[in-house]
Amino acid sequence: MSIESVTPMGSVRLGDDGASVVIVDQSLLPNEIKYLVLRGREELYEAILELRVRGAPAIGIFAAYAVCVLAGQTKASAYDDFYNEFNRNKAYLDSSRPTAVNLRKALDRIDNIAAANAGKPIPEIIDAMKAEAVKIHQEDISMCRAISEYGLELVRDGDGILTHCNAGPLATSRYGTGLGTLFLAQERGITLHAWCGETRPLLQGARLTTFELQKAGIDCTLICDNMASLVMKEGKINACFTGCDRAAANGDIANKIGTSGIAILARHYGIPFYVFCPSSTIDFACKTGEDIKIEQRAPEEIKEKFFMRPIALPEVKCYNPAFDVTDNSLITAIITEKGICRSPYTENLAAMFK
Amino acid sequence: MSIESVTPMGSVRLGDDGASVVIVDQSLLPNEIKYLVLRGREELYEAILELRVRGAPAIGIFAAYAVCVLAGQTKASAYDDFYNEFNRNKAYLDSSRPTAVNLRKALDRIDNIAAANAGKPIPEIIDAMKAEAVKIHQEDISMCRAISEYGLELVRDGDGILTHCNAGPLATSRYGTGLGTLFLAQERGITLHAWCGETRPLLQGARLTTFELQKAGIDCTLICDNMASLVMKEGKINACFTGCDRAAANGDIANKIGTSGIAILARHYGIPFYVFCPSSTIDFACKTGEDIKIEQRAPEEIKEKFFMRPIALPEVKCYNPAFDVTDNSLITAIITEKGICRSPYTENLAAMFK
Repeated sequence: MSIESVTPMGSVRLGDDGASVVIVDQSLLPNEIKYLVLRGREELYEAILELRVRGAPAIGIFAAYAVCVLAGQTKASAYDDFYNEFNRNKAYLDSSRPTAVNLRKALDRIDNIAAANAGKPIPEIIDAMKAEAVKIHQEDISMCRAISEYGLELVRDGDGILTHCNAGPLATSRYGTGLGTLFLAQERGITLHAWCGETRPLLQGARLTTFELQKAGIDCTLICDNMASLVMKEGKINACFTGCDRAAANGDIANKIGTSGIAILARHYGIPFYVFCPSSTIDFACKTGEDIKIEQRAPEEIKEKFFMRPIALPEVKCYNPAFDVTDNSLITAIITEKGICRSPYTENLAAMFK
Repeated sequence: MSIESVTPMGSVRLGDDGASVVIVDQSLLPNEIKYLVLRGREELYEAILELRVRGAPAIGIFAAYAVCVLAGQTKASAYDDFYNEFNRNKAYLDSSRPTAVNLRKALDRIDNIAAANAGKPIPEIIDAMKAEAVKIHQEDISMCRAISEYGLELVRDGDGILTHCNAGPLATSRYGTGLGTLFLAQERGITLHAWCGETRPLLQGARLTTFELQKAGIDCTLICDNMASLVMKEGKINACFTGCDRAAANGDIANKIGTSGIAILARHYGIPFYVFCPSSTIDFACKTGEDIKIEQRAPEEIKEKFFMRPIALPEVKCYNPAFDVTDNSLITAIITEKGICRSPYTENLAAMFK
């Protein structure tokens, strides 16, 4: 049973009652496929914080639905009260994780609808907000599909692809970003072999990417992150595919910790390094990667989570940045729903989207 | 209680009865400090295979003692029978792990003693063999000390040092190779800060290196392997220190998987990359790193070991090379007990040792 077959829109959907958000709890995969029906303010926030829902596009979709579900619980009768309450919920959800820009951008889109419909009856405003959330979701499906199509231009039958973290259906909708090309290739009879970095500390590559690929029947091999250099040296890798959590205007990209290291290794070995990035993940307000805030997470994720026994003494300090920034000079191309964008990124991304 | 304080010679010693090898079971650290008293052929082999004893120099010392302990159990009365039995034990222990050359070199040294004493009474031969094993051990202590002294020339007060895997007292004797300089610096009042890569899959960096440093009161921070690029970029790292499992004549070095990636990142960021390598770890019979056999280990180490639940589906394939080879062009210097050796390595290593 693949995630695709159980949640055809991806790992997030609006509950059938329109008053809840339903997700696959990604923190439990691959050992358990558990659906959560979320309604409460704190549990919606916690789902993002604890990576029950994760992946920049999926977080955006989730937050859009979540803020609508919370709006539906309002007791306000005056617009101002309703809108103030909306803004508190928006700010609360937005504070859950700082790096992926989709979260803020999706919430801003719902905000724009709430503001534009000022004065209308509140149930009508909420319906318009929900329609916008569904639109964000459907746009993501279309963008993932288009990105995956463009990605096909970058591969040949038999290629080995190094993946990092998870940028598949769980992280997005349907095809995914970084993994979408692998799913589409399989549909077209093109054989690709994925080498999946496990992605410490939270193991999204091991737990989610190999799960998605294996269930889809795509040949994949799990490696530890520190094996990337060797598999590249051994000629197993023809291209690196990653997703993106926030792209700056100059093409610097924030993505899961470890991404910049892979890009440097790829450069060393002469292997192309591709970033799959829907426009919803581009933040033109960030001029360079230096403007992107990197989330720092708890030491327990490194030392304790998932393990039978702690892997270090309690008094040992940890440094646990969740993302790093890859310099645009290391990126062979950024693949968006509009096409394959190459350096100089400032000019070419602007020409594509502005 | 530091390992140093409980096992002043390192993590391996000949039992007081002369008929056993005593080790700290490194596979249980840091949660449990358990000593094993090993006598049996299979348990001695298994201790190496399962990394209860690990670290190239420690494996060599252990194997030297182990083959003596097994010799002491002989029922042979004729030299030829004794020596044939010795050779079977030697070959068996030598087959436990292929990459670290210290194993074979230590066994060869005991073999030379056994051969040179042909015709003498067997108990006398065994005593001579044991004396050679103790000599290997004592030489390692001296080499580690000398290497650590030379390492001090490469650091300045306040430096951040990136470490990988474990090359401290547990892996060697006393000071260690890659970590020795950190211990010595502390004795001399020089403050270094260690950034310790956890070293997947078996987590020697997390479990052993931070244990040794923390117990010694040396400032250290644990990171996941894929965070090396970011900490380098952030200016936290002034030098990378690693041990070595086998150095080829041209200065290519096999070390724990991930080492080559760190060397490439260090080159990218302009950070020196130093390999601490006693002459017992240099294999002049290997012309280049291509001649070094890389051990492949079981997928369970990646997917299951240490974890509460498997991190990937049972059917997911793993690739689990235990070492990689770092090209000599990426190595700033190789520090041996004779001094700091720089490129061209073929000439300079030969001049130092041949």
